[in-house]
Amino acid sequence: MEILQVEAPLVCTYRIPGLQHVSLRVLRNTKTGKRQVAVDPVGCREGNWVFTSLGSAARYAAGDYEVLTDLTICGIIDNWEEEQQ
Amino acid sequence: MEILQVEAPLVCTYRIPGLQHVSLRVLRNTKTGKRQVAVDPVGCREGNWVFTSLGSAARYAAGDYEVLTDLTICGIIDNWEEEQQ
Amino acid sequence: MEILQVEAPLVCTYRIPGLQHVSLRVLRNTKTGKRQVAVDPVGCREGNWVFTSLGSAARYAAGDYEVLTDLTICGIIDNWEEEQQ
Amino acid sequence: MEILQVEAPLVCTYRIPGLQHVSLRVLRNTKTGKRQVAVDPVGCREGNWVFTSLGSAARYAAGDYEVLTDLTICGIIDNWEEEQQ
Amino acid sequence: MEILQVEAPLVCTYRIPGLQHVSLRVLRNTKTGKRQVAVDPVGCREGNWVFTSLGSAARYAAGDYEVLTDLTICGIIDNWEEEQQ
Repeated sequence: MEILQVEAPLVCTYRIPGLQHVSLRVLRNTKTGKRQVAVDPVGCREGNWVFTSLGSAARYAAGDYEVLTDLTICGIIDNWEEEQQ
Repeated sequence: MEILQVEAPLVCTYRIPGLQHVSLRVLRNTKTGKRQVAVDPVGCREGNWVFTSLGSAARYAAGDYEVLTDLTICGIIDNWEEEQQ
Repeated sequence: MEILQVEAPLVCTYRIPGLQHVSLRVLRNTKTGKRQVAVDPVGCREGNWVFTSLGSAARYAAGDYEVLTDLTICGIIDNWEEEQQ
Repeated sequence: MEILQVEAPLVCTYRIPGLQHVSLRVLRNTKTGKRQVAVDPVGCREGNWVFTSLGSAARYAAGDYEVLTDLTICGIIDNWEEEQQ
Repeated sequence: MEILQVEAPLVCTYRIPGLQHVSLRVLRNTKTGKRQVAVDPVGCREGNWVFTSLGSAARYAAGDYEVLTDLTICGIIDNWEEEQQ
């Protein structure tokens, strides 16, 4: 499970039906700068460090296998420092 | 879910039966320059910033598990700047 | 779906039973130089630019879920230039 | 299966229900410095070199398909040197 | 399917039950130096060049879906030169 930082909610006017009822966040790898979008069943705040599940586990982790994500936040890490990523 | 920019439709005279009835797009990671092909159930336009689902979720996201893709566009992102990728 | 160039058939005297009846090709990412092996249900020729499906979609794309590949050619791209990869 | 070094237990006050009853470890790739979180069904100690399974195999390896991980420790490697990673 | 070179058997005194009855090998990407662990249903020798299947295909390729690997050797490549990787 990857370790990433929460940056912002995702703003999108159009999404497929399989993602309509979920909260989406932009996550950032602070080392590489790469951003990804994840489903957030946890209720994260900007700046939180989280770990994520990829693949079919992400659908179950989103609380419903019908959620068509490949990345879901699984928990918030306590006391994580940016340089640890 | 990865964040990519729509570049162009994919032109191909031959494709496997499992992809015959879908719209295919070339997507580009503007940071690395890498291009990928994705199924587009959304109806994107060139230049749109989109996020994509990978793996088995991509087949469901394409609207039909019989579509043999590993990458499908899940939504169009509003107000995304190239430098954010 | 990744975009790769067909280099050559794969020559191997031993393969597992789950791959015995399929045509295997060496594909090359011309940007990174990395080579991979894919099942070819299409009948590609050396130099063709193709796009490939990864994961469980690759098994279905090979025409039979019993084919134990993780990468299958899904179509031949028309008019692709090397610098586009 | 990837080869990684055990660094520390993961400290997190909130995690999704699908990960509540498992032991989580931070693993580190000593070559790239990248850290990941894995389920530990083995009982590793800090400094151990382990190999991990990714994807759906990770859920079974955790001892229960209901565990929503994408990375699980599968064994402890004997006599591994850091420079081998 | 990735192309890798067989380096050595994996020596580990502890492994999860789902991997107890299989032969494990350390494989090496000679270009990047990265090592991985794979199930070997083929009987490779040190120095052999092999291609591998990833993900759920790896479990079937190991001869039994109960084998909790994410990487399995699928065949030995003839006449492969190191510089081709």
